[in-house]
Amino acid sequence: MKKIYDIILAYEESKCEDFIKRIEGKKPLFIHVIGTTETAKIPGISAAGKYPELTDYTPAADAELLLLGSCKCIPGVPTTPEGIPTPALITMSALRLADVPTLIVSGGVKIRPHIPFIDLGGKSGGDIRSGKAVADAEEILVRARIAGENLSKLADYLVIGESVPGGTTTALAVMLAMGVDARGKVSSSMPYNPHELKIRVVEEGLRNSGIKFGSLSNDPITAISCVGDPMMPAFAGLVLGAARRSPVLMAGGTQMCAILAIVKALDQTILQNIAIGTTRWLISDRSADLKGIVSQIADVPIMAADLDFARSKFNGLRVYEEGFVKEGVGAGGASIAAMAKSRGLISKAVLLEEIERNYERLVMLRRS
Amino acid sequence: MKKIYDIILAYEESKCEDFIKRIEGKKPLFIHVIGTTETAKIPGISAAGKYPELTDYTPAADAELLLLGSCKCIPGVPTTPEGIPTPALITMSALRLADVPTLIVSGGVKIRPHIPFIDLGGKSGGDIRSGKAVADAEEILVRARIAGENLSKLADYLVIGESVPGGTTTALAVMLAMGVDARGKVSSSMPYNPHELKIRVVEEGLRNSGIKFGSLSNDPITAISCVGDPMMPAFAGLVLGAARRSPVLMAGGTQMCAILAIVKALDQTILQNIAIGTTRWLISDRSADLKGIVSQIADVPIMAADLDFARSKFNGLRVYEEGFVKEGVGAGGASIAAMAKSRGLISKAVLLEEIERNYERLVMLRRS
Repeated sequence: MKKIYDIILAYEESKCEDFIKRIEGKKPLFIHVIGTTETAKIPGISAAGKYPELTDYTPAADAELLLLGSCKCIPGVPTTPEGIPTPALITMSALRLADVPTLIVSGGVKIRPHIPFIDLGGKSGGDIRSGKAVADAEEILVRARIAGENLSKLADYLVIGESVPGGTTTALAVMLAMGVDARGKVSSSMPYNPHELKIRVVEEGLRNSGIKFGSLSNDPITAISCVGDPMMPAFAGLVLGAARRSPVLMAGGTQMCAILAIVKALDQTILQNIAIGTTRWLISDRSADLKGIVSQIADVPIMAADLDFARSKFNGLRVYEEGFVKEGVGAGGASIAAMAKSRGLISKAVLLEEIERNYERLVMLRRS
Repeated sequence: MKKIYDIILAYEESKCEDFIKRIEGKKPLFIHVIGTTETAKIPGISAAGKYPELTDYTPAADAELLLLGSCKCIPGVPTTPEGIPTPALITMSALRLADVPTLIVSGGVKIRPHIPFIDLGGKSGGDIRSGKAVADAEEILVRARIAGENLSKLADYLVIGESVPGGTTTALAVMLAMGVDARGKVSSSMPYNPHELKIRVVEEGLRNSGIKFGSLSNDPITAISCVGDPMMPAFAGLVLGAARRSPVLMAGGTQMCAILAIVKALDQTILQNIAIGTTRWLISDRSADLKGIVSQIADVPIMAADLDFARSKFNGLRVYEEGFVKEGVGAGGASIAAMAKSRGLISKAVLLEEIERNYERLVMLRRS
């Protein structure tokens, strides 16, 4: 696939080129949207926390890492059960190298980060199996849209990432409710993708909400309310508010497809201002199919940061090449923004060096 | 006094000229800092709410008015006991005319606005007579500083306003604790300035905190914690984080002197990036002495929007000329920013027209 700088043009090549032309040398604002849910605590669903209860801390800790360079609400940094550190390490490294201002937005969290963040009045989400996933989804979306309108005036374009454990499961549920066949296509932060478990959980939620495949294709708010997560209305509202005026790079993997479906259902006119930014690991993931989902919704361009940790000196980074983590906390989009802002001066090699420096500081030193 | 556009150069004329040169034609970000306190509920202290308990709603309602163009948490708009509407009408009109993006920051409020706002983890403040006014003042300031650093990268300069009922009383208390003699010099939103009452309340607070005049001149955090309000550490932290990089227009009256004293005690090096922006009514107030306080702290420039409501068609605006309201919600600073951004195209006449339009929409129509 064609590359510009170290950015892979993964889908809709000419739209990718256009999008990169619009953002290169320009100043982005990175917005990180956080949320927590009870869905994430279903055993086997999420790798974002070693123990299910820890998933409540992951989004707050990720947000702290982005803003402060270290976490406050937990010691060290979030890791997978195997001890692999959060992709926020990548995001933070990219944002710092490129001096990108960063704001945190909460759609609803159980553990609040110890940093300034934009509150939308939302609460932590329920277990989608109950069919009562998100309270006040519409109000969260309305408030996020107002924030998006204001924030879009403050930068040349926005990059929006997210951190919500269990997020691919809720994404799958919302997509099925909206008629996007994402079964077996959503990604996982684990090398073995537990599609069966996700589908079982999702189907229980849909059944208990009385939702059939596609029955909510025009009603994303109800889909989120029943089987989504609180990150979704916040993220979608920000996009809806900002993309009327500015380009928006939605930074993430297959969860971005759920956002795209929500946004499209509420305002088709802004789709030409939207792109998806992810990582090479995500688009190379044979257990998922990002393009296969996006193409069902809207032909927005997909770009991927050509990150390569194969020769890293740290095992905790080399294992990214084996399918661990892959994406999250807007790692791919933040890397793309850093590359585009610096017109390639921040290459994947420069980025890896900075990531290793931060890895050493935050992961190695704590162990020794 | 000399004017540029409809901006009065009220103090340190050449510094005013320099500051206006730095901001004219440039793009500001308006940040509105809100807080509530039990101090505001002491009878006679605040005119921001008709009944003492209503002071809890005023900052949230003001914030909603700025972001939405109308209030959500109360019907209509906040008014004084006489029915005179909030100065947020002026601020909102100026920000909309000049298309200035706006963010809300909460230092700690009892009633949370129904809009997106940046939460710093603070709580509503106590009654300063108890000597326990603000919990976690230092943490609020630290978080605000991080927000200020990030937000300063997003605009050419910042304009920061505030809404905290009873704020001149807490300002007086903090200034006396820090050795600034503001007795009889702080302003009031009422034509009759209840200096005696304010001093009595403040002295009780200082006594119960074991604070003597000037004994905390180097310890603003303790001064705020004992006798301040939660707006202060939020506002000061934003200034401290932003003014290293960008000009900051502190938008308000004599409360800005308390912020100035706090900021100076923590970082003298940024004072050359700071100006105070207020209204003509405030600098004409014979019951107060803004310049007399500022000159005790640091010779930062003071500018005043030359607003004149004498010929307004609405009585609720004409009474501003009799000393009601005078300033608040960053009305003066927002007007100055609108004039400077438009290089004078937004004149005081243009602004009054827009204010009257909004007055009609929000105040008159509701009554009929």
